[in-house]
This record gives sequence, C-alpha cells and structure tokens, in this order.
Amino acid sequence: MKIIKTGGVTTPRGFKAGGTNCGIKANEKSDLAIIYSEVPGGTAILTTTNEVKAAPILWCKDVIANPYKQAVVVNSGNANACTGQAGITAVAATAKKMAEALGLKPEDVLVASTGVIGVALPVEKILSGIDVLVPKIGNTSEDGRLAANAILTTDTGVKTIGVEVEIQGKLVKIGGMAKGSGMIHPNMATMLSFVTTDVNIEPALLQKLLKETTIDTYNMISVDGDTSTNDMVTVMSNGMAGNDKLEEATTDYEIFKEAFVFVHKTLAKKIIRDGEGATKFIEVEVYGTKTKNEARILAKAVITSNLVKTALFGEDANWGRVLCALGYSGVEFDPLKVSLIFSSQAGMITLLKDGVPIAFKEDEAKKVLSETDINISVDLKDGDEKAVAWGCDLSYEYVKINGDYRS
Amino acid sequence: MKIIKTGGVTTPRGFKAGGTNCGIKANEKSDLAIIYSEVPGGTAILTTTNEVKAAPILWCKDVIANPYKQAVVVNSGNANACTGQAGITAVAATAKKMAEALGLKPEDVLVASTGVIGVALPVEKILSGIDVLVPKIGNTSEDGRLAANAILTTDTGVKTIGVEVEIQGKLVKIGGMAKGSGMIHPNMATMLSFVTTDVNIEPALLQKLLKETTIDTYNMISVDGDTSTNDMVTVMSNGMAGNDKLEEATTDYEIFKEAFVFVHKTLAKKIIRDGEGATKFIEVEVYGTKTKNEARILAKAVITSNLVKTALFGEDANWGRVLCALGYSGVEFDPLKVSLIFSSQAGMITLLKDGVPIAFKEDEAKKVLSETDINISVDLKDGDEKAVAWGCDLSYEYVKINGDYRS
Repeated sequence: MKIIKTGGVTTPRGFKAGGTNCGIKANEKSDLAIIYSEVPGGTAILTTTNEVKAAPILWCKDVIANPYKQAVVVNSGNANACTGQAGITAVAATAKKMAEALGLKPEDVLVASTGVIGVALPVEKILSGIDVLVPKIGNTSEDGRLAANAILTTDTGVKTIGVEVEIQGKLVKIGGMAKGSGMIHPNMATMLSFVTTDVNIEPALLQKLLKETTIDTYNMISVDGDTSTNDMVTVMSNGMAGNDKLEEATTDYEIFKEAFVFVHKTLAKKIIRDGEGATKFIEVEVYGTKTKNEARILAKAVITSNLVKTALFGEDANWGRVLCALGYSGVEFDPLKVSLIFSSQAGMITLLKDGVPIAFKEDEAKKVLSETDINISVDLKDGDEKAVAWGCDLSYEYVKINGDYRS
Repeated sequence: MKIIKTGGVTTPRGFKAGGTNCGIKANEKSDLAIIYSEVPGGTAILTTTNEVKAAPILWCKDVIANPYKQAVVVNSGNANACTGQAGITAVAATAKKMAEALGLKPEDVLVASTGVIGVALPVEKILSGIDVLVPKIGNTSEDGRLAANAILTTDTGVKTIGVEVEIQGKLVKIGGMAKGSGMIHPNMATMLSFVTTDVNIEPALLQKLLKETTIDTYNMISVDGDTSTNDMVTVMSNGMAGNDKLEEATTDYEIFKEAFVFVHKTLAKKIIRDGEGATKFIEVEVYGTKTKNEARILAKAVITSNLVKTALFGEDANWGRVLCALGYSGVEFDPLKVSLIFSSQAGMITLLKDGVPIAFKEDEAKKVLSETDINISVDLKDGDEKAVAWGCDLSYEYVKINGDYRS
C-alpha cells in the first residue's frame, strides 16, 4: 500500500470535488462542499444512532435504498437538526438543485450538514452556492483540499487521506476527508467522513466492509462522549480502476480491505488529534480480556473519563483514575491481576504490576507525560483479546470553545 | 417535618462525633472523622458498583453480614484504593484500633476512605489519630460539624443536614453528612454519605428503604460521570427515640420515609452545589415518558453531557445539545413531540414546543442563564412518568482542579 501525501476525495479516478463560501458562516470561511463521481457509484453509508436525527440524515437513510449515488453536497455552519418540517423541505430542495446542476436525479444525491443545532437552515444561500460551485469542481488534489476545508467547524485543519494498492495489476485508489472536533463519540457511525474509491465492488459487500471497519476505527474514538445528531460516513465506489469485481475472502479483497481500514483509521485518528481544545493524543490499549468487545468497552471507558482526560492535560500521573474508569465500565475483572503502563517517546513507566502499585519518580512520569502522544497500556491477564481506543485530553480550551460555541 | 439548621450526624439521640487532623493531609486540614453510637445501631449500607473497590469498601461489605454497628471511622486525603494487600491490612488495623479505643469488637466498626487512589495509606497516622480523637468526640452540633469537615477533599464546605419528625408522640431525628465534589456519578450507591437516626426500625427494612431512596437521590446526580472506587452511604439507627418498631406501609413509616428521603436528597443536592469548579446548579426535569426509568435515563443523559455543561458555564442557550443528549440516551422517543424550557428565578424561555423551535431573544436567554440555579424542563408527551436529575456546569476551574489533583 502506498500513501499519497496530497491525497483526498479526488485521488481515485473519476471523482471531482470543490468547496466555497455560500454565506452560512459569517466570516467568509468555506461552508459548502461537493463531491461528484463521473459515473454512478455503489455507495455504503452509516448514520448516527442518535434518536434525534438531522434532516439530511433522514434523507440519506431514505435514498440509500438504491445504493448507486453520484454526488454528495455538504454544508458546515448549520446542522439542520431539530429544524422540523422546514429542515426536511430544505434538504429536498438542496438535492433537487444539485440534480439540476449536475444532470442527475435528486435521489442520486447525498446531503450532509454540520454546525449548530436548532437554527433554521438558510437554504437559499446553499442553492445559490451550488450554482456557483458546480462549474468550479475539479479532480486535482487542490480541489479535494477545498472540499475538505469547507466541511470544517471548530476543526483547526483539514483531515484528508489518499492511498493506492495494486489489485489484478490495476492501481486501485481510496481517498477520504473528514471533519470532527466536537460532539465526537461515534456509535455505529461517525462524525462526517466521506471516502471515495475507484475500486469495482458490489455495494452490499462495501456496506458490510464499512460496518466492520467502523467498529475498530470511528467507534473507538471519543472527544467528549456526545454522539451527534449528524454523524455520517459514506463511501462511494465508481469501479473506474477497472479491476474484476472484488469477491469476499480473496487475496484481492484482503489487499483492498487493509487499505480501506487504514484510510478510515487514519481519518478517525486525525479527528482525535484535532479534538476541541486537545493538547494530547491519547491511545489506550487494553490487553488480556476474554472477549474483544470487553476490551473495546474497557478502552473506551478510559478514553472518555473526564478525570483521566484532565489528569493528562495536567501531565499528572494520577493512574488511579484509569483503574477507576476500568472499574465502572461494566466489565468484570480481577483488579489484583491488572498491570498498567504509561509511555511516550520520552520513555515508559510501570505504575501497576499484577495489581501491585510500583513506586515511580514524579520527575520521570512528568517527562513521559509532557509529550504530545501518550500511550496507556492495560493488561488484565484474563484472556487473549485486545482493543485500542483513541482520545484526547480535556483542556481549558475545550471549555472555552464550548462555553460560547454559537457566537 | 422540622429542619434543624445546625443539624448533623450528632442530631439524633446517642450519637457522638468528631474530627481532627492526623497528618495525612500535609496542610493540617482535618482528615479523620469518627461517628459513634452509644448503643449498637441497626445499619444499612450501599457501596460502589465499581469493579475496583477500595479496601474499606471490601471491609464494610464483609462486616455488614451482621447489621448492628456502633462506629464509623473515615479518613480523607487517601482513598486506600488500588493499594493491594497492604491496604486491606491497614483497614483491619484501623478497625481494631477503633474497637480498642471504644470498647467494641473490630467488626462493629465501619471504615471509609476518600482521596487519592493508588498511594499507600499511612496507617500509623490514622492509628495515632484515633487515640487523639476518641477522647474528644461529643454530641454537640459543633462536634458533628468537625466530623463533616474532616471527610472533605476538594469540597469547599461541609454538607450537613438534620431533621425532626413526630412519630407516636416521640421526636424522631435524622442527621447526616456527606462529601462529594469530584468522581461523582453514583450508581446504586454514592460518594461518602453518613446518616444517623434514633428511630427504631428493623435493619432489613432500613436497608430496603435506603436502596429505594438512593435511586432518586444520589443516583440522579452527576458531577463528572466517573463512579468512584470508594462510594458509600451508611445509615445507623440506634432506636433511642423510643418509638415502637416502624412497620412498612403504615402512616408512621411514611412520615419517617418522607424525612429520610428529604435528608438524602438534600445531601445529594449539596454535593452537586459544591461540584468541582461548579458555577451553576442545574436541575433537569423530564416529563411524559412511558416509564420512570426512561425518564431517569433521559435526565441523566442531559446532566452528564459535557457539551450541555460547558454551554451552561458559558450561559449560552445552545439547546440543541439538550436534544442531542436525549437522543443518544438509548431511550426511544419522537423528537417531533418534544417541548423544552429553560428557566431560573430571572424568568423562563420556551425553546422548543411540540418539536418546533421557538424564536427567542438572546438577551432574555442570557438573563435567564446568568442565574446560579438553572432548570431544564423537557416534556416528551409520550406517557405520564417523570424524573429529576441534578448536576453542575463544566468550568475552567474543574479542569484546573483535576489537571493537578495530586499536588
């Protein structure tokens, strides 16, 4: 697998994209993005499990009955959630406008939104924006970057990825972009993540692969424990790589799958690295559980603990909070068998070995925790399964950002 | 029911208490408390559901097999959790010392600890402290206050309550003290809360009542979503009020129960009002659910949302976050039927009525949210059940306190 440094949603053959400001964000920041495939693409999609679903989520769940899609339009600055019937009408108008501008049917278009909840969507601005943006979309990496930039909210930078694998002598490419930052605690779905690929694959198999992939990628990250009303991940595959259709349980499929998982995991980790107010990237590895799901639950309990997050912000080796979080996760284990290690590129410290606290030097712990990337490794010695979760610390800046988000 | 303003654990007949510094806290702050009943008291106890249980929790779960207890000793500054066999030995030594000093058996003594996790308990300091403190305990309200002060950690003040009801012409009293502040997200139990009463009641009935009471008091509060390793609530009843033994489903029992629930609810709310870094006291009322448990789950989802908490810290009427939290609670409901109101003593604003957002003036919302006590009222119009939860905002100060708790 080759990583394409400037890769993004325009990396695979036949995909165009672009981004612009259509006036939703007051400060002229980009707020409208389009992804377009030259041919209909078999599409997989996962959406939020939140009972309160934004209007665009309802639209996508409806139109995906036919999995062949050709365009995605995304606005930032307004989530079009809790906006009643007006919000639903706005999505339909947006899809209709996209269809007219691109020569498609409205149901060929996926719609996504992110931003403040409960404010009427200024749909006229989006409709005008589509007229402006459609003629400008292109297939360069810069076009992909413009699209990736237009979907951001409190993010501090674009999150893109592009990779290439060889299947049957054909170069198959996967590209993606995501936005994250706040209200990030995906559950069976995710924040906004859009992936494109020119692989030839049956949509049903793509959907299955996406579902499997999210469990150990987007579903293992958390910024603040809040599962959004607008979470969505889509993958469009247009088959233009020219490979024979991928079949499950083949070497070709495994090659593609490895790259596919890498793309989603990379986007998920980029979201965490840019978590609202984050100063640390925290990886929690849990080993030695009876089942993989137990390991996942334990790792997520640690990564979502406000007390663990604030301790790491303060670079304080308050490891008892890790044990506390494991303890209330709901998974049974024997505390007297647990081992715990904090590490970073500055070194490692063992805090607990087989349930016994190990004395450590505060200055060494401080050195380890002063790095940006921190690893917390827990071994329960109760089985052979493991899981990894990713999260960030909880800083003053997180409180600041979210204390006055709407202004 | 009469509220006794200076009430505390010494309010009921036959209870003595006291507090001192025994040297666990470096700054000479009080860190050792004792409660003593002149006669053996039928005792109810609930302890943390956390899989990692502190050594004193294990002791209490063990000795409560016989529900008659006569003393409680509590230290703050060290949780004696994740301390291995040494921690268990330290608890036994503490109970033994208490028994010697008070002429009891070790198993008549309950032990509780709160403070940092994973640091060896300096048990010698506690043993010396018991020698100093036992001769000083007394039955005045000041003695009760000294005990209440000695169990605090990051709390900014004591949390005490005393009430009096008349049963069969006898005055029955209930007193209590609690500590809270951080790692507060009780589940079937609570932080530390110690309640005394001179009522005459069978321990089994007292235990049943305590279990019922915690569901809508301690279990409906949250500071940070972290369920501690040391949570404990105990109630000692010494029967010295002289009433005939209380029987369930009688008027006498109902009179006592009302006062009992009031005592625990008051302590629970005092914990929230003094939540770490809290600037707001938030009450979330959820109405119109099919079951009471659904209402509880929904109310707790709102009260524990970091995004709701930071918005209220910022006095920002970002009500979409309330809907978002309801939505990911796991309870099914129809978002198009929901009504939502924010209120305080400065007024009220309706934000959502039957699923339709209601325009509001930002300056009016700011006025309502600038108060200290904020009420969030949600009506799902899906049934007749309701529940209330209490929480606090998430401030810079919370991050500061927890970024460097051990120093």
